[in-house]
Amino acid sequence: MRSWLRLGVDLGGTLVKMALVDGSGRILDRVQVKTEKTPRALVKSLRKAVDHWMSRPIRGTGVGVAGDVDPHKGIVRFSANLGWRNVPLADYFRQAKFPGPVAVENDATAAAWGAAHLEFSGRSKNLIVLTLGTGVGGGLLFDGRLYRGSTGTAGEVGHMTVEEGGDPCACGNRGCLEAYLGGASLVRWARAAYKQKGRSVDPLDPKILEDRARAGDAVAKEAWRRAGHALGTALTSLVNLLNPDTILLTGGVAKGAPLFLPPAVKQMKHGAFKTSSRAVRIVVAKHPADLGVAGAALLVQ
Amino acid sequence: MRSWLRLGVDLGGTLVKMALVDGSGRILDRVQVKTEKTPRALVKSLRKAVDHWMSRPIRGTGVGVAGDVDPHKGIVRFSANLGWRNVPLADYFRQAKFPGPVAVENDATAAAWGAAHLEFSGRSKNLIVLTLGTGVGGGLLFDGRLYRGSTGTAGEVGHMTVEEGGDPCACGNRGCLEAYLGGASLVRWARAAYKQKGRSVDPLDPKILEDRARAGDAVAKEAWRRAGHALGTALTSLVNLLNPDTILLTGGVAKGAPLFLPPAVKQMKHGAFKTSSRAVRIVVAKHPADLGVAGAALLVQ
Repeated sequence: MRSWLRLGVDLGGTLVKMALVDGSGRILDRVQVKTEKTPRALVKSLRKAVDHWMSRPIRGTGVGVAGDVDPHKGIVRFSANLGWRNVPLADYFRQAKFPGPVAVENDATAAAWGAAHLEFSGRSKNLIVLTLGTGVGGGLLFDGRLYRGSTGTAGEVGHMTVEEGGDPCACGNRGCLEAYLGGASLVRWARAAYKQKGRSVDPLDPKILEDRARAGDAVAKEAWRRAGHALGTALTSLVNLLNPDTILLTGGVAKGAPLFLPPAVKQMKHGAFKTSSRAVRIVVAKHPADLGVAGAALLVQ
Repeated sequence: MRSWLRLGVDLGGTLVKMALVDGSGRILDRVQVKTEKTPRALVKSLRKAVDHWMSRPIRGTGVGVAGDVDPHKGIVRFSANLGWRNVPLADYFRQAKFPGPVAVENDATAAAWGAAHLEFSGRSKNLIVLTLGTGVGGGLLFDGRLYRGSTGTAGEVGHMTVEEGGDPCACGNRGCLEAYLGGASLVRWARAAYKQKGRSVDPLDPKILEDRARAGDAVAKEAWRRAGHALGTALTSLVNLLNPDTILLTGGVAKGAPLFLPPAVKQMKHGAFKTSSRAVRIVVAKHPADLGVAGAALLVQ
């Protein structure tokens, strides 16, 4: 008997990753497509790109989307990255004849589900996943089950306030974790600091800031120190509030973890309750590229 | 057929409340005992005080304790209020022949369970309860189930950081919500402010600060303003992170809610994501005295 497969889709602002995934989350085949066109046309082109998978026994399709999603209705309420508002994405996938049923979920929530399987083989029951990219997202697993909150919007770890009245955040508030640790914020802060010193600014991205910090550049080091301090404050609150067994960092900016994670963990250990701080491990993902797409696939029951 | 009853115990630093509770959380009878003696002797005296209940069909005993509890083992790992460390409380209750099984739980977690039944009749699925007393505790209900975390320590809402490097907190950290909104912190701050103005200080407690603020006293008003601002920051993080349907305030300091809650809610509405901030109601408990003892009883399956 052949075991059933699932089709996973990780729908980001620039790239759509698709994968054929087995029941344990292992990826058997992959396809990547650039994100373009209107949502309906995009879904049609995605379907064409995986036409050669349709002879396989696929149980259903799971889609992770960067945005505010209603997982019950399969609607993307809002996505700043994609420029979408109230898109009935599950309907589009069904109409394009993707193997059904179709599950639509926030991409960080999907990544948390992927992490529970791929990184921890189901052994983490209370897991917080931080997706560190341009912004900072998050997914939550409590008592072995995904937690989505009342409107599917839970997990916005990046928009916990770590510095009341602090740096402005893309969300409109101030002092959010994302305003220090998000890739865009890191770059924005460093750019301003370089300008103030009369130094040339471009090109600049988190990877370049990583390299410069390792080479001893003071501005880059300070950008990561600020990010680490903000993370330390957020970790303290998360550990005291949620008593997780694991906090996992993933996404491109997590590559800089050696620069910002040790001081953040030290700060949390100093500030949080002992029983809770001793119970948590804080680690960087081993399979960062696969968590979102595999997690989306595994959302299909 | 008579329905089964449950015996609830709310074990605080100065007073132990006990109640005979029916399956819906209704309290049929009550007994109060002063907290004194060693834990084992205290449990014996509690048992004597409810001897007249023992002819009733009692299904089991639920105990809420102010402290760090291991609910699986029924051990109070640490309670600052009671001066206890590693007390096998469930064993003591069984040895004293309380109707078994015996469930031991953190008191704020028990109060959250009580609130889910008494305040919302099971209609709140994602509920955060803040217990505002000398300190600030909390209990969490996710998807209709109590969430205790990995070591039973989850829910320490009072020890989320709202002001990095801010006022010192009893827990040893700085800038916790409790350092502004806890009854002891309110009084400590106001006492210092009065002293600085050369005004007489005692007596002072949260109730007196409430009355003075209502009468226009500037120090008292500022104490509540600071508390409200700290709560607003915590609410913003809680709503973005956990997307609850309800946040409930209970405990003695919650009586001051008209002074601090409206600006806190306004701050949250301004700072948090719209989808989540619209989905949450923030209310003060109608049955604050009963939540802990009824919730403890209802923990018995």
